[in-house]
Amino acid sequence: MARTCLSIILAAGEGSRMKSRRAKVLHEVAGLAMIRHVAKAAAATGSSHIALVLGRDHEEVEASVQKTQGEGVSTHLQMERLGTAHAVLAARAALEEGWDDVLILYGDTPLIRPETLTRARASLLAGADVCVVGFRPSDPTGYGRLIEGGGELLAIREHKDASDTERLIGYCNSGVMAVRGGVLLDLLEKVGNDNSKGEYYLTDIVAIARAKGQTVRAIEAPADEVAGVNSRVELAYVEALWQSRRRREMMLAGVTLVAPDTVFFSHDTEIAADVVVEPNVVFGPGVSVLAGAVIHAFSHLEGARVGVGCAIGPFARLRPGATLATDAKVGNFCEIKNAEVGEGAKVNHLTYIGDATVGAKSNIGAGTITCNYDGALKHHTEIGAGVFVGSNTALVAPVSVGDGAYIASGSVITENIPADALALGRARQVNKDDRGRLIRERNAAAKAERKRREAEAKEA
Amino acid sequence: MARTCLSIILAAGEGSRMKSRRAKVLHEVAGLAMIRHVAKAAAATGSSHIALVLGRDHEEVEASVQKTQGEGVSTHLQMERLGTAHAVLAARAALEEGWDDVLILYGDTPLIRPETLTRARASLLAGADVCVVGFRPSDPTGYGRLIEGGGELLAIREHKDASDTERLIGYCNSGVMAVRGGVLLDLLEKVGNDNSKGEYYLTDIVAIARAKGQTVRAIEAPADEVAGVNSRVELAYVEALWQSRRRREMMLAGVTLVAPDTVFFSHDTEIAADVVVEPNVVFGPGVSVLAGAVIHAFSHLEGARVGVGCAIGPFARLRPGATLATDAKVGNFCEIKNAEVGEGAKVNHLTYIGDATVGAKSNIGAGTITCNYDGALKHHTEIGAGVFVGSNTALVAPVSVGDGAYIASGSVITENIPADALALGRARQVNKDDRGRLIRERNAAAKAERKRREAEAKEA
Amino acid sequence: MARTCLSIILAAGEGSRMKSRRAKVLHEVAGLAMIRHVAKAAAATGSSHIALVLGRDHEEVEASVQKTQGEGVSTHLQMERLGTAHAVLAARAALEEGWDDVLILYGDTPLIRPETLTRARASLLAGADVCVVGFRPSDPTGYGRLIEGGGELLAIREHKDASDTERLIGYCNSGVMAVRGGVLLDLLEKVGNDNSKGEYYLTDIVAIARAKGQTVRAIEAPADEVAGVNSRVELAYVEALWQSRRRREMMLAGVTLVAPDTVFFSHDTEIAADVVVEPNVVFGPGVSVLAGAVIHAFSHLEGARVGVGCAIGPFARLRPGATLATDAKVGNFCEIKNAEVGEGAKVNHLTYIGDATVGAKSNIGAGTITCNYDGALKHHTEIGAGVFVGSNTALVAPVSVGDGAYIASGSVITENIPADALALGRARQVNKDDRGRLIRERNAAAKAERKRREAEAKEA
Repeated sequence: MARTCLSIILAAGEGSRMKSRRAKVLHEVAGLAMIRHVAKAAAATGSSHIALVLGRDHEEVEASVQKTQGEGVSTHLQMERLGTAHAVLAARAALEEGWDDVLILYGDTPLIRPETLTRARASLLAGADVCVVGFRPSDPTGYGRLIEGGGELLAIREHKDASDTERLIGYCNSGVMAVRGGVLLDLLEKVGNDNSKGEYYLTDIVAIARAKGQTVRAIEAPADEVAGVNSRVELAYVEALWQSRRRREMMLAGVTLVAPDTVFFSHDTEIAADVVVEPNVVFGPGVSVLAGAVIHAFSHLEGARVGVGCAIGPFARLRPGATLATDAKVGNFCEIKNAEVGEGAKVNHLTYIGDATVGAKSNIGAGTITCNYDGALKHHTEIGAGVFVGSNTALVAPVSVGDGAYIASGSVITENIPADALALGRARQVNKDDRGRLIRERNAAAKAERKRREAEAKEA
Repeated sequence: MARTCLSIILAAGEGSRMKSRRAKVLHEVAGLAMIRHVAKAAAATGSSHIALVLGRDHEEVEASVQKTQGEGVSTHLQMERLGTAHAVLAARAALEEGWDDVLILYGDTPLIRPETLTRARASLLAGADVCVVGFRPSDPTGYGRLIEGGGELLAIREHKDASDTERLIGYCNSGVMAVRGGVLLDLLEKVGNDNSKGEYYLTDIVAIARAKGQTVRAIEAPADEVAGVNSRVELAYVEALWQSRRRREMMLAGVTLVAPDTVFFSHDTEIAADVVVEPNVVFGPGVSVLAGAVIHAFSHLEGARVGVGCAIGPFARLRPGATLATDAKVGNFCEIKNAEVGEGAKVNHLTYIGDATVGAKSNIGAGTITCNYDGALKHHTEIGAGVFVGSNTALVAPVSVGDGAYIASGSVITENIPADALALGRARQVNKDDRGRLIRERNAAAKAERKRREAEAKEA
Repeated sequence: MARTCLSIILAAGEGSRMKSRRAKVLHEVAGLAMIRHVAKAAAATGSSHIALVLGRDHEEVEASVQKTQGEGVSTHLQMERLGTAHAVLAARAALEEGWDDVLILYGDTPLIRPETLTRARASLLAGADVCVVGFRPSDPTGYGRLIEGGGELLAIREHKDASDTERLIGYCNSGVMAVRGGVLLDLLEKVGNDNSKGEYYLTDIVAIARAKGQTVRAIEAPADEVAGVNSRVELAYVEALWQSRRRREMMLAGVTLVAPDTVFFSHDTEIAADVVVEPNVVFGPGVSVLAGAVIHAFSHLEGARVGVGCAIGPFARLRPGATLATDAKVGNFCEIKNAEVGEGAKVNHLTYIGDATVGAKSNIGAGTITCNYDGALKHHTEIGAGVFVGSNTALVAPVSVGDGAYIASGSVITENIPADALALGRARQVNKDDRGRLIRERNAAAKAERKRREAEAKEA
């Protein structure tokens, strides 16, 4: 599509039903602010510029959208709240730059898909001046009805103005529109506020365009796509819709989800075919999992790359920067942060690997800790290939362990270990005969004494 | 409401379909015995006394209810099971004390709400002698139908006695009633047992009251509120209804639940607005969470107080007595029990803090353990402010660490550490060149030898 | 039933919609390959032999079925895919052995129950030559309709051939059949391929049998039982049906599931009455739990035996070979593998017990690790009764700890400990006054310096 396209995203609403100190459109779905979902859909449908119409917290909202969309974002403040047409006109500066197509979107309907917006733009290309996106809610009460005839949209009838027959119409206005850039400003300027609320309604442009002999059409979107968010109950609902959609896509693409309802993806999770994901797995942003890997139950991944054939969990946490090579294993109660784990390496139990490199085929014993933080700075631990790290080892970074080295269990490693060396850093064991019994008896006596005193204190 | 009120809770049923050694009404919903939910609703609607009609395990049930309701509880044994009117009459001693209003409730319908009971009492205040709580089940088959006329309840028609027309009525008897104290005893005494089962039915008082010229009315409750529990399937259903109700309330009050269906509250969980709760979080009894805190996925909290802006989990467990000051952090695979964690303090990985105090801004390294138990008694660990505890440290209580102290990684701390001191309790590292290789070869040889022997054994 | 029975399981389909490198019927439901569910149902209904009709990966599929069914399994390759009758004929060698009854089953409908197959066989015993298993799908579109009359099955009408009236029939063909062994081969040989696809359809034997004057009947199965799997979405659906069925059975048998939808069983999980299972628990294969045990939230069990009154979790993992005696406790962030934990023993926090025995009443301190692996072989740790293992202890196997011994916190145990002895293996603590402050200042200075350099680098 060589036509130029501007997307205007309305997001000036207060969102007071969210009961939040944060702007409504910054609340997240699948780990991404709602408005960024909308901006991504706009960009994916060919918009080169996004005009945000904002109210409160506009700096924060603009900054959030710029994270995804970079430079092509402008902010337009709507200081008074005088209706949707008034809101769109707040972006007059952007509109006046001249566009083939203009999309009007909403910051609180994050599930809108590029496919739908592309169909709306295609409707303009096919001759429409205005294209309204309609949908069929399970209960149309309260929505404006779309009245069609002869392949055109004749009118949007507000619920309160609709006749009984018109109220039987299930096809409703979502608010989303595509409008030819050449006509929009003129249409908006003709919208009046002669109604009970004294507001300027965007839907009025349908009648105005028709009166001018322009062509108005409607296209239908699935109801789920235009679900709006006004409360945290609706936020949770939209999140559930998003997750449900994504789980289905994943399964159809060859990912096994043993219990799909218990797996949570982020907006950018990538999983290859023939990966098995067991129940209760949470994917934070930035995760990719390659073929043949198994993510066992109760795992939490974020910013991590999981290689071919890896086994993760149960009860594993991969944090940002965790990069696992082919066939690596990260087992229960292990945390990997900003670390590379080499091919076939094993980190099986109760271990923290942070700011580190673990070489191929190395085995990290249970209870190993990389002491990466000195209270001020983080330091790196370098573990070579084929290393055996005995259980309960502390590796005080910065430190390096050469290939093939062997660390005795319970050691504190503060100095570099050459390749193939053995390192020990622990005290010798001493057994003291019968002293266990004495300690037990002494402790039991102390317990009896404490109980006696407590009883006395109670009586007193 | 200055009127006095007695609540009679019927709970003598065997509950054999629960297949349990425990009394049915002691099974829990949201971490609280079912009968205590009912007693709490009764108290919240102004009942100053609760008469329990019990059968088996009556001591245990009475003790449970007294935990919430204190002194105003009496127990009345129903030795024979001769119907609901007979059961209410078992509480004759309580009834004879003279009450304005009497509520008749059931120990196995834990979702009844004070709002509903208050409406039932208000019906008495407005002139009714008897007020029956009705509901509309999705399938009324088997329930007694409420037949109304002229604003009064004319009759309760049992399903088997109902005409075809009457069976079309969807409004049914829940069994819950409010009755004027002055008339109840007389009504109950007139109930006969001339029916197929030879039982005394409480519902008969409706006809008796009307025959005496008294006024009988019905009020409607949502069907969910009067759902009864007879099996563990129904127990799970009622638990799900309770959770669903509470999640919705929480979200409407400004708590973000990313995946509400995966978050489990207890009866007394308190969460402030703008708290985010990620998927898969379990709140046991006694938890409060202040504003701005984030509870990450896979966290388990019980008896804990989480301060403003705290971050918990993923994979964190807060046990009773965990008290976290503002901006404290408890990370993965950490357990906090009976301990105060100071403002901005961090307990990030693989740590057990029990019977301890951690001062503000202190940093507890990964793998730190407070050794609070000596086999007989628990002891306290005191960690000051601004302390750095190196990873894999064991703190053998009782012990104290002064403000600003620094503990080297891998230390075992058995003696107090002065403020600003450095403490070490670990052996020096020794590297033995080439010994790693030798160990590896020796172990590999042992493995080969074991395999050879196993092969031999198989052949033999 | 003394009649002999052969089961033919058709499993030669490509399953391309699974998008998997693995044969479709090897994908698992409840931790067991789908085809093994079918084979188990066949065996449970009295089949002494199972004939598998296979295509790709036939060795792997056959090996899988033999795990459950042992010797009585034969494999028959269907090299071309010419329809279901052709597939059954691939098992001609098995058919020719002579059987009273033959069941025709499908490797991708794993929920079929023995009760249904027994009813189908009973229909043969009562005189039918062919018995078709029907079901009532929520939407019958596309299914062959079962047309009955006079207690017999008159025809199976394919959807495309059905009249409008016939399409109103909701009773459909599942494909599962029982056929008298004496007539099946003859019927199959008469099936032609004169249809649009040129395939040999098994359903044609109904008309052929009737034309020969044989008796054909249908029995109805619940729709869920014959749900087939062609994609991972359907696999997840069937898994959910299986889990739902099992949860209900468990609850009715007296197991409390606080949140049934969050508990996942395996095909062979056994749980006694009055066990409580909290939310979010995963049972892998091979688990049994005895009465009175509590499985707290976020627990993962596999190949484990949990004794009477045990408490597991939250956040506990029991791996294969974990055997817990009465009243044992395994707490948070603990892993037990191939180990016996004695009566009343406690493993409460952050511990790995692998290849070990823990005696009765022993207390394993937080952070204890059995170092069972030397890089080549696994070794055993023997802990006696009444032992106190101090926190952060590493037990380097092979090693034994006598009854009543006491191990000081932070020890590395490399040698056997006699009964009642005290063992220490740790360095003495040293406090260096004011050195904590100096380290803090030095680290802070290093941090400042690093920041300064980074700022310089940025400018440059």
